Amino acid sequence: MISELQAYLKKEYGIEFKDPSLLAEAFTQASYVNEHPNQGLKFYERIEFLGDAVLQLFVSEYIYKRYPQLPQGKLTRLRAAMVCEDSFSKFAKECHFDQYIRLGRGEEMAGARQRPGLLCDIFESFIGALYLDQGRDAVEKFIHRVIFPKLDMGWFDHAVDAKTSLQEFLQRDGDVDIEYHLLAETGSENAPVFKVNVSANGKVIGMGSGSSKKHAEMAAAKAALTTLRKQKK
Amino acid sequence: MISELQAYLKKEYGIEFKDPSLLAEAFTQASYVNEHPNQGLKFYERIEFLGDAVLQLFVSEYIYKRYPQLPQGKLTRLRAAMVCEDSFSKFAKECHFDQYIRLGRGEEMAGARQRPGLLCDIFESFIGALYLDQGRDAVEKFIHRVIFPKLDMGWFDHAVDAKTSLQEFLQRDGDVDIEYHLLAETGSENAPVFKVNVSANGKVIGMGSGSSKKHAEMAAAKAALTTLRKQKK
Repeated sequence: MISELQAYLKKEYGIEFKDPSLLAEAFTQASYVNEHPNQGLKFYERIEFLGDAVLQLFVSEYIYKRYPQLPQGKLTRLRAAMVCEDSFSKFAKECHFDQYIRLGRGEEMAGARQRPGLLCDIFESFIGALYLDQGRDAVEKFIHRVIFPKLDMGWFDHAVDAKTSLQEFLQRDGDVDIEYHLLAETGSENAPVFKVNVSANGKVIGMGSGSSKKHAEMAAAKAALTTLRKQKK
Repeated sequence: MISELQAYLKKEYGIEFKDPSLLAEAFTQASYVNEHPNQGLKFYERIEFLGDAVLQLFVSEYIYKRYPQLPQGKLTRLRAAMVCEDSFSKFAKECHFDQYIRLGRGEEMAGARQRPGLLCDIFESFIGALYLDQGRDAVEKFIHRVIFPKLDMGWFDHAVDAKTSLQEFLQRDGDVDIEYHLLAETGSENAPVFKVNVSANGKVIGMGSGSSKKHAEMAAAKAALTTLRKQKK
């Protein structure tokens, strides 16, 4: 299983481990070690401890530099959305890491291989092993491919409001003048409907409506982001 | 204040910032920025966000490598004891960082300069600025001087039990045979007293007693650690 993993990593990511035993450790659950005593096997938990901190720093550094205007509170919220079981388990699946985990029979039968908690752990332990064996540049290269593109794809938009996301998206390549205009206020007094558009350097890029001016602006920003992301592809 | 800080860092730690504005940002609280509007000042919170993650990783990496036998749970407990407000505020005081913080007048009057929460923040933001300006090697050098020696001084012993600490202390330079021997069991049935010694490669290095064998072993390990640490000085 580990030699297949080595071949896969080489083919897919150009990664060749100097010390394959680190890679084996990172993909081995305690239950497997228990079923194979006297083989001197190690399980992933220590490396996961390290990998967790590696991911925490690299994600922090990336969003710190990418969003120079984002205040600490929003940076923290965005990091929490990126560095969590939900996203790491998805990254692990996307990287097909689930196929290479060494599990004990009981855990296998219980469906552990697809459990988000385990997939998340394995993603972290892989990063820990990569860091120890190949250094920080290799980790950066890997997460630039696997994690950061998801920011542009909107995976973490729920953590940062749409107006902020739009601002960061537009201003990454320099200053852009973003304006929201109220177009109409309709509906009844108890159920008003606001209609707003958003423009970048004078050009309308999105439109939205909502029960308050703020909600309408958020909707317009979201619409603009969706269009801009489609154009980028 | 910032130029005095620069002089101090150069003299005391050999650190010269390429971009002093980063250093200024790291030592400036929001209250100071509010009192000096229109100067384009920034406060420390964003850099602190980064510094926190830098410390988390570097401490994790150090203890991961230094304690190769320590399981994840104990590594996590030890890291939590090292990376916390209590210890960071002490490091900040030890480095005299409290003298260089830029505070608003209200905060100054309220005694914020000595508040552990602020001192901890400033320690983290300094590390963040050092990381951005001077790179990871400079951070490692700094925390090898300021943080890691405290491990040998026993600052974090409460996070790891004494037997584990003794083992790690002795086995850092290679394998050492550690044995605990029950010397005597005295007291009454309801209040027994156990007396134990601990030896390293056959030489007795500590003695202790307690109400159970385990407590006596812990006491012996603690006594041995105290003696060994004195000898090391």
